[in-house]
Amino acid sequence: MSIRIFITGGTFDKEYNELTGQLYFKDSHLPEMLELGRCLVPIEVRTLMMIDSLEMSVIDRELIARHCEEADETQIIITHGTDTMADTAQLLMEKVKNKTIVLTGAIVPYKFGSSDGLFNLGSAIAFVQTLPAGVYIAMNGRYFKAGKVRKNKETGEFDEMQ
Amino acid sequence: MSIRIFITGGTFDKEYNELTGQLYFKDSHLPEMLELGRCLVPIEVRTLMMIDSLEMSVIDRELIARHCEEADETQIIITHGTDTMADTAQLLMEKVKNKTIVLTGAIVPYKFGSSDGLFNLGSAIAFVQTLPAGVYIAMNGRYFKAGKVRKNKETGEFDEMQ
Amino acid sequence: MSIRIFITGGTFDKEYNELTGQLYFKDSHLPEMLELGRCLVPIEVRTLMMIDSLEMSVIDRELIARHCEEADETQIIITHGTDTMADTAQLLMEKVKNKTIVLTGAIVPYKFGSSDGLFNLGSAIAFVQTLPAGVYIAMNGRYFKAGKVRKNKETGEFDEMQ
Amino acid sequence: MSIRIFITGGTFDKEYNELTGQLYFKDSHLPEMLELGRCLVPIEVRTLMMIDSLEMSVIDRELIARHCEEADETQIIITHGTDTMADTAQLLMEKVKNKTIVLTGAIVPYKFGSSDGLFNLGSAIAFVQTLPAGVYIAMNGRYFKAGKVRKNKETGEFDEMQ
Repeated sequence: MSIRIFITGGTFDKEYNELTGQLYFKDSHLPEMLELGRCLVPIEVRTLMMIDSLEMSVIDRELIARHCEEADETQIIITHGTDTMADTAQLLMEKVKNKTIVLTGAIVPYKFGSSDGLFNLGSAIAFVQTLPAGVYIAMNGRYFKAGKVRKNKETGEFDEMQ
Repeated sequence: MSIRIFITGGTFDKEYNELTGQLYFKDSHLPEMLELGRCLVPIEVRTLMMIDSLEMSVIDRELIARHCEEADETQIIITHGTDTMADTAQLLMEKVKNKTIVLTGAIVPYKFGSSDGLFNLGSAIAFVQTLPAGVYIAMNGRYFKAGKVRKNKETGEFDEMQ
Repeated sequence: MSIRIFITGGTFDKEYNELTGQLYFKDSHLPEMLELGRCLVPIEVRTLMMIDSLEMSVIDRELIARHCEEADETQIIITHGTDTMADTAQLLMEKVKNKTIVLTGAIVPYKFGSSDGLFNLGSAIAFVQTLPAGVYIAMNGRYFKAGKVRKNKETGEFDEMQ
Repeated sequence: MSIRIFITGGTFDKEYNELTGQLYFKDSHLPEMLELGRCLVPIEVRTLMMIDSLEMSVIDRELIARHCEEADETQIIITHGTDTMADTAQLLMEKVKNKTIVLTGAIVPYKFGSSDGLFNLGSAIAFVQTLPAGVYIAMNGRYFKAGKVRKNKETGEFDEMQ
């Protein structure tokens, strides 16, 4: 059985627009990253949206949840902006049962030399194969259970909540 | 409790010698890679040797095994050349009990732009936290149990053995 | 005699802020780029400002001109945002005589993998050593005389004006 | 009139063979590098050979000279291994008149993150447009006249000879 990856955007996939000097979304870098990692796990990739997670609405989150429910796969990775990743994880935890769902992202765009993206993707692919059913966030080499994690806006890191 | 990383060399850490044009070992890139991955898992790194795995002797392997046994940590990652990674895994499986040991490496040096190293390191750090006690190889986003894996010399990939 | 490099900012030196997701200026990457290029030409680097060239005022330009006049060196490179590079070149042409001044920049930040910055820097260092006294823009492997060049806002390229 | 680039191999174009762990030649990276530099100078690229310059014979050098003579272009860049670059420059100086020929290379392969290749290419493209007819070596941001330059085997740098 394959792993399913749903792409929603986030820093991960931001590009530099050479004309305007702004960061923007074009195509996802996921296929290129899987190739670079010489990933041989069967993986199905589908882009659901390409947005900044600060712009993600309830409707967007419900769309993601429905895709998770309806997917044949029981191991699902979601690439997602870090700002509201914990919110989406919370909603998925309430709506989707009996699947292992791992949300991951990056704090620096993949196209920047200093990106953490490839490291995070490697860890997410490993976590989704080994963690029991549930919803998790994988960042900084760690994993957190949905509902018990928040992004610390001052450090940019994810913290476990009691 | 920290994760312990033992460095043994391998393609991972090969450098380009600007004077001779040969690949060689200098310092490990592990600390730099952990920083790039913004890794926040507590990790202790120790270099045991810096060699090509084709040059690894039985004595070298026994040294690695002894370090694994004596380490306080129960989660251990070993960076290792891919050519004889399966052999070292086999020996560790026989000698070291009650620990989760994950061997990983790279097929292209980290310092080459096209390296799979960062992806593999991310997956190894995830696998070592989630797999039960035992010895494993983590490559290409997959994991294999020691004793049931070999490197296919024609494709360069690891295959599961029956 | 050394070459003098004055840094004024521009896309060249933009960094990605991991907390805010915005591009901003921190330190210049020039020393790192000269090292990467194994540059052995004697070079003196000085940062005059770190700004987007759209925010460059007449006072800023006059400051740059005064530094060019007062410098001991007769070969001067200025790193500069591309949007108003032609304007600064025009002013320098009117104010600074008997020196070879080459303005260069980048359309993608150096820290992005796909940057043209290192290529442009290599060409600027060559042009400044070989062109006669005058003010020039060096971009895309080409050089243009000040007063006869403008940036085409639609293509992002520099065009020669009749 | 275009610039002509003749490719002969050298460190510049070395690739890492994932199966054997050896460096080898596949295709040239020149087109990719010109694209990265957003080079807009008209350039014609032709591969003459793909060899290590230590293996370059007199016959190889004469072939290069003949191509330089017969080319329509008067501005010619040759990518070349650094070990015998000065020898080829010497022969070209004797055989080819009335053209500006610039030899360049790299001390680290382009595909390694730490390569000086893009910087050198940028400088070579600038030097070939501005230097008078003659044969030159462009390395480390500097240029040297053929017949007055040698590679210092201990430092890996090019020195001017008296």
